[in-house]
Amino acid sequence: MASITKVSPLAPAAFPELPAIDGVRFATVEAGVRYQGRTDVMLAVLDPGTSVAGVFTRSATRAAPVLDCQEKIGGPSDGPAAILVNSGNANAFTGHYGQSSVAEVTQAVSKTTGVPVERVFTSSTGVIGEPLPHGRIVAQLEALKSGLSRHVIEDAARAIMTTDTFPKGASAQVEIDGKTVSIAGISKGSGMIAPDMATMLVYIFTDAQVEQSALQQMLGTQTDRTFNCITVDSDTSTSDSLLLCATGASGVDATDNAAFAEALETVMLDLAQQVVRDGEGATKFVEIRVTGAVTDADAKVHGLAIANSPLIKTAIAGEDPNWGRVVMAIGKSGAAADRDLLSISFGDILVAEKGWVSPDYREEDAAEYMKAQDLVIGVDLGLGAGKSTVWTCDLTHGYIEINADYRS
Amino acid sequence: MASITKVSPLAPAAFPELPAIDGVRFATVEAGVRYQGRTDVMLAVLDPGTSVAGVFTRSATRAAPVLDCQEKIGGPSDGPAAILVNSGNANAFTGHYGQSSVAEVTQAVSKTTGVPVERVFTSSTGVIGEPLPHGRIVAQLEALKSGLSRHVIEDAARAIMTTDTFPKGASAQVEIDGKTVSIAGISKGSGMIAPDMATMLVYIFTDAQVEQSALQQMLGTQTDRTFNCITVDSDTSTSDSLLLCATGASGVDATDNAAFAEALETVMLDLAQQVVRDGEGATKFVEIRVTGAVTDADAKVHGLAIANSPLIKTAIAGEDPNWGRVVMAIGKSGAAADRDLLSISFGDILVAEKGWVSPDYREEDAAEYMKAQDLVIGVDLGLGAGKSTVWTCDLTHGYIEINADYRS
Repeated sequence: MASITKVSPLAPAAFPELPAIDGVRFATVEAGVRYQGRTDVMLAVLDPGTSVAGVFTRSATRAAPVLDCQEKIGGPSDGPAAILVNSGNANAFTGHYGQSSVAEVTQAVSKTTGVPVERVFTSSTGVIGEPLPHGRIVAQLEALKSGLSRHVIEDAARAIMTTDTFPKGASAQVEIDGKTVSIAGISKGSGMIAPDMATMLVYIFTDAQVEQSALQQMLGTQTDRTFNCITVDSDTSTSDSLLLCATGASGVDATDNAAFAEALETVMLDLAQQVVRDGEGATKFVEIRVTGAVTDADAKVHGLAIANSPLIKTAIAGEDPNWGRVVMAIGKSGAAADRDLLSISFGDILVAEKGWVSPDYREEDAAEYMKAQDLVIGVDLGLGAGKSTVWTCDLTHGYIEINADYRS
Repeated sequence: MASITKVSPLAPAAFPELPAIDGVRFATVEAGVRYQGRTDVMLAVLDPGTSVAGVFTRSATRAAPVLDCQEKIGGPSDGPAAILVNSGNANAFTGHYGQSSVAEVTQAVSKTTGVPVERVFTSSTGVIGEPLPHGRIVAQLEALKSGLSRHVIEDAARAIMTTDTFPKGASAQVEIDGKTVSIAGISKGSGMIAPDMATMLVYIFTDAQVEQSALQQMLGTQTDRTFNCITVDSDTSTSDSLLLCATGASGVDATDNAAFAEALETVMLDLAQQVVRDGEGATKFVEIRVTGAVTDADAKVHGLAIANSPLIKTAIAGEDPNWGRVVMAIGKSGAAADRDLLSISFGDILVAEKGWVSPDYREEDAAEYMKAQDLVIGVDLGLGAGKSTVWTCDLTHGYIEINADYRS
């Protein structure tokens, strides 16, 4: 792989302080699956009673661990649960061997930890099409078990990285019935980012108590507003997985609790935006706010057409306020638009309205604005009340450097 | 604009010899619409009796000249016809001023040439959102008229270029009833190429005699197999226009003639592929052959998902036989696929089959193959008889250089 040594200029200053979640313990290890000199396997063990919800890629070529997780989500919920993740190898497009690898790993985790095999969830991320050397993972399970700790979630975030240049974590706390409920999560992802159901690898933990089907429903709703609203390069991974685990250790029932749902959305959006901020080669973080569409769905189609346009992403890289390309993307998206009702803004600068450039628009203002690291492109269709916000990054030489010689 | 001085490495050795088409005359001029020191306006005048068919972008933000052409196609067919094209300014997203510009130009062409205004078709290509200085074009009409000649189609091909690095032309001749019918065409296009009905700017002329509605139907069918099967960057232009003019000067009726339709498709495919070969920054020409899909439409969805994937396009630029990314693109496309029935080949090299890498696959063979300039990626879905072939190019630093600082 290419040596990715430079941290994204859009990275947060440091990994955030995350609250320990009662009922969850982590461990990481160097198993040498593919990478050398870094951790590449993480194990999370969850106390009995934990509800586990999950959303996954809808790719028709999804990886063996994804298929295994999808079978298990919503199944028996007795006893403890476990999540094992390796980086370096995606165990995707590996035929029957891939399924055998998942079976070997999940059975070994079950034997070592005492977690029922139907509650052992795995993810693999990295190169596609090469057999997973699962023996290297199994050989480390005792070491992982003995290293389990409540306080090493940052290590877990590091162990699951591939082309990521920084580990990603986020948290929130919310008061319910006078008690504090905590949520903490980690994610990985940098390229092949255009989630279509869930995204990349994301693990979120809470000590709230939420019954599995309610947790699953909440996760689906929030995913559509967070991870399904980001894109780096329009390419959807074969391994996208998001697991949300509610241990119930706080004793607080958060089922249907609006404050909890909002806190969860905050964490998910933070993790999703960090993935964009680590977009391969990214130098700009771009929020695209679409309003005035016929429907919310139409607004999202327009937003993603803008976010995925190579011509817009390169213009942003070049700090060029090229609003003509925004017009182009809206035009091609397929969702309803009327050229003569459209308005476009960069930050607070109204660029175009009523089918033409705004009379007050001065290109030098927009050119100055484009120099910022975080940008907002606003589009109002002038048709209705539909709205959506999506997030993306620019397309730079860095993306090409990373992807023209990295076998992912 | 960026100075584009280097000719694409995929360019043909020279502009081809094109047969003069009886009933068509061309002229070009330096009007200084935007560019200096080069021709930027071309006029074609067609003899009375010429049938004119056209297909256009389906963009919701299409340019004023496109809207004007769409109104006129299929209308009155008496008298001569004319096509006027300028480069440097797309007259797109220019509000009511844009429509006035089209009216000014078409009326002036009518007055100068005697062509009825409803038979004057115009196209504009270049920067979006700036007013077209139509006075500069009108001022050159007398000069254009006096320069009309049957033998300057190559000049016409040059006058319509924007970021193109070479002029594009193609021709075919076919015997019908013992007589020779000729077809000759020109095209321009390099970026913002993902046609969704027609494409870029293309003008094709024939001395065959074909009634307008039959010509229109033939054009639609052939467009779906040629221009609608290419993509450079998934971005669809606001100006895509393709006009096909049958002068009838040969006296040969080619309506419903299969040989003529085939010759026309050859010309259209040649012009379409030349656009890909001039893709911004392109160093590789890639044919993607999809077979075994449930339907032809499904095959095209898979083909375009592969052709538009930034991860595949960068892998090709890096000469990396990264077939895992092909698996990814098939998985995300949304069209039917079964991971375990899929096979993938690079040229004659079978890479993957039955859900995994082929047992005979040697990466060094594929890596050697990827060094070629023209590549074929084959995908068989193993599901049915649906098939489609699409064409694209790689994604290189050159694309970013051109688009991060060119105001198109």
